[in-house]
Amino acid sequence: MELVKIGIIHSPYKTKEEAPRQGADSEEICYIEIFEDYINGLKDIEEAKYLIILYWGHQSNRETLITKTPFSDVPKGVFACRSPNRPNPVLLDIAELIDLKGNVLVVKGLDAIDGSPVIDIKPYYERIDIPKGLQEKIFEEQSK
Amino acid sequence: MELVKIGIIHSPYKTKEEAPRQGADSEEICYIEIFEDYINGLKDIEEAKYLIILYWGHQSNRETLITKTPFSDVPKGVFACRSPNRPNPVLLDIAELIDLKGNVLVVKGLDAIDGSPVIDIKPYYERIDIPKGLQEKIFEEQSK
Repeated sequence: MELVKIGIIHSPYKTKEEAPRQGADSEEICYIEIFEDYINGLKDIEEAKYLIILYWGHQSNRETLITKTPFSDVPKGVFACRSPNRPNPVLLDIAELIDLKGNVLVVKGLDAIDGSPVIDIKPYYERIDIPKGLQEKIFEEQSK
Repeated sequence: MELVKIGIIHSPYKTKEEAPRQGADSEEICYIEIFEDYINGLKDIEEAKYLIILYWGHQSNRETLITKTPFSDVPKGVFACRSPNRPNPVLLDIAELIDLKGNVLVVKGLDAIDGSPVIDIKPYYERIDIPKGLQEKIFEEQSK
């Protein structure tokens, strides 16, 4: 299972220490440059308001299985937390799509370090990306 | 960027045709077997009600960049839809964690074909996995 780099993230976070804990905590604008070979895959992407961004944690430690989190003194398994250190550092952010300029997605909501390789982009769909139990509350609210 | 297989999905869907379009459409119980080398990463996972499951689309076509979707006659870019065919077939489901039996996660909400390789498991967090605009509605509703 070999991944190809479909693009690169340009972010204001130059080091791990500068990056926010989660993309949801970021108000910064970031730029996702999609490489020429993959540009056709962007067709109609501007229909999406939010995107799921999968990127590669190129500075992650892949040997870590148990890790300390900022929320507790008790270490957790990496599959029970969102640490960037994990066997396959495929990291995930839900970002807001602000603009599309040619092959560059202008987004808000990334915690990625500048230069992170992009693996995949998917449109975020409320119907499938919010668990049904929580979804019902949103739909009820929206239909009022 | 080489991925390791951390486990395997056991699902009732033996072929692409049998699998539902989206995991959210599935009421079937599936079993995610985590391999021995990665079991420690599961510590405290039972605290999560929902999980983000990343798995490998081992039957995906990685050359596809534009594809027909079930929702329109106009083909879309693969980054603008949720087709399993894409340059890096890292597929994503939000699943409900029903039980943990040793190294096996019992879940509901997968569209994966039986035998799909597991790439990563992350806990789903409302605060970061629901875009803020939608989140506010949920939190308002919950605090009533």
